[in-house]
Amino acid sequence: MEKKHILVTIPLSQEQRDALEQEGTQVRFRLGEALPSGRGGTLPFPQLLPAEPVTEEDMAWAEAILGNVAPELLKKAPRLEWMQTSSAGVEPYLHPGLLRPETALTNATGAYGLAISEHMLGMLLMVFKKLELYRDAQRREDWASQGQVRTLLGSVVLVMGLGDIGGDFARLCKAMGAYVIGLRRTPGPKPAFVDELHLTGELDSLLPRADVVAVTLPGTPRTRGMLSRERIALMKEGAVLLNVGRGYVVDTEALCDALESGRLGGAGLDVTDPEPLPPGHRLWQLPTAVVTPHVSGGYHLWETHERIAAIFAENLRRFLHGEPLKNQVDPASGYRRRDDST
Amino acid sequence: MEKKHILVTIPLSQEQRDALEQEGTQVRFRLGEALPSGRGGTLPFPQLLPAEPVTEEDMAWAEAILGNVAPELLKKAPRLEWMQTSSAGVEPYLHPGLLRPETALTNATGAYGLAISEHMLGMLLMVFKKLELYRDAQRREDWASQGQVRTLLGSVVLVMGLGDIGGDFARLCKAMGAYVIGLRRTPGPKPAFVDELHLTGELDSLLPRADVVAVTLPGTPRTRGMLSRERIALMKEGAVLLNVGRGYVVDTEALCDALESGRLGGAGLDVTDPEPLPPGHRLWQLPTAVVTPHVSGGYHLWETHERIAAIFAENLRRFLHGEPLKNQVDPASGYRRRDDST
Repeated sequence: MEKKHILVTIPLSQEQRDALEQEGTQVRFRLGEALPSGRGGTLPFPQLLPAEPVTEEDMAWAEAILGNVAPELLKKAPRLEWMQTSSAGVEPYLHPGLLRPETALTNATGAYGLAISEHMLGMLLMVFKKLELYRDAQRREDWASQGQVRTLLGSVVLVMGLGDIGGDFARLCKAMGAYVIGLRRTPGPKPAFVDELHLTGELDSLLPRADVVAVTLPGTPRTRGMLSRERIALMKEGAVLLNVGRGYVVDTEALCDALESGRLGGAGLDVTDPEPLPPGHRLWQLPTAVVTPHVSGGYHLWETHERIAAIFAENLRRFLHGEPLKNQVDPASGYRRRDDST
Repeated sequence: MEKKHILVTIPLSQEQRDALEQEGTQVRFRLGEALPSGRGGTLPFPQLLPAEPVTEEDMAWAEAILGNVAPELLKKAPRLEWMQTSSAGVEPYLHPGLLRPETALTNATGAYGLAISEHMLGMLLMVFKKLELYRDAQRREDWASQGQVRTLLGSVVLVMGLGDIGGDFARLCKAMGAYVIGLRRTPGPKPAFVDELHLTGELDSLLPRADVVAVTLPGTPRTRGMLSRERIALMKEGAVLLNVGRGYVVDTEALCDALESGRLGGAGLDVTDPEPLPPGHRLWQLPTAVVTPHVSGGYHLWETHERIAAIFAENLRRFLHGEPLKNQVDPASGYRRRDDST
């Protein structure tokens, strides 16, 4: 049997490389793109082996790519049968003319839930306990109460998007005693980790009930601007907005207005619009806005990197055996196929 | 039957007052001490009724006190049969000569677990996710990764003190996938919310195993200085220390040295020694120290206040019916009697 040409473009340890050197493969280890723009990029995990950047010759050779490459390079890959991203978001690869129709596209859903859901809970507890204000006070060496705080126990948390990330966050909130409302695009059975399940079309009637609105939606034409000024106005007085999906799902100016006026109680934002947030943008200095620079995912957590490597190995095994791949993305919608939970 | 004279010294709503106006009581509603020094004091919950400060005449009249009063006032209370604090800590009332030997002392254990355990988890996630550094970066308008972060999943959390607060924190950590080691003073069955249970004497062998050491111990002569310089040196490289018990349980200077050198990964401190932390103290400016001004408990959370009022009502019912009181404190040890879990 002809050996399949596999191009792997993330830094890996020897053990992780070995897991990809399967019977029937010829593997090249290269360095591709960092995770999509705004992510912190690859970090120096000590065990990782060095590698050279991807070349056009690599692209001409590759039948499968595991890891992200610069999207325009895909035009140089006439033999490509399968593209497996190391990211959950795949927008850069959806533009027409990049991937051939017969090329399968799979993402790294499942790798990021742990890291991002914990980051979300950290931002939420900061805002609920005023820890962002206490941090500012600490810098001023000011020992003074900032007043009343809030609890997750009994709080209503609306989770928009019940994929890997939204699902894990819903589980954490439920474990802390919150009442969790899940929102998703397509009908399906109610998972045990939400108290209510609704469809996206019901959003307007749910926003006034939620103490916390958590956005874990991918970036698609349908999600762009979904939390518009009108919808932010529907949110409950004092509610908290979390966003780890894409910045442009939320109307930033409307959010800033609502935080500035005190109508919203706070926000935890790992993604912004514009992104990166430019110096001088008013969001930086709003006291109850907690802003992190798109770092909740990426390779910031070692476990995320390990999970990505495990997804690569499992999908490569399936690819070589002609089995259906996991995490297939429908290029038309930008959502995963089959397990259509978001 | 002679009506019992009950002095209530915390602000209450009409509904909460009604719950204390029981058959067989004559109740005076006054304002006593705020919670023990360092607490944020009473906050303006909107529904609370106004009250006058406690007088010496009130003390002479009282047969039971629900709520904290200035300790020296207890010398003016010859008829006092029962003192119920609104705080979990009771050190100020343990000094010889304040309470008569026949006066029962009960505390508000059970009221604070929710508020303080969530505050602890918030501080821990801040340090694990570098959110304190991201907050500082936000103030500088700096969009840049702070590097690798950590997860609670699989982390070893050593909880010192398994009372109300330590128990609730252990439950939260376990729900997030941590491996929880509980440490307590006296033998007893292992609660379901810890993976291992040990006695205080085993502390030195446990410290090197823990990614997180969480101190929820009360202030007693035995706990003073328990986390000495020698014991801090036994902690694992990169470990995180949380303290919500009493500041003097930890050697502050040794902790500062360990944070400054990077040997410890961070700290979340709601109590300090000295307390309040004076301006110019180096702890204020250590980047990985998260300091809050003894606010995790107090009345900062509405639910805490409601739980205190409920403890008052239940113990008052027991007092009037001659039943054993809940949360009795042994003046010799400073610990609760019977349910001796810390």
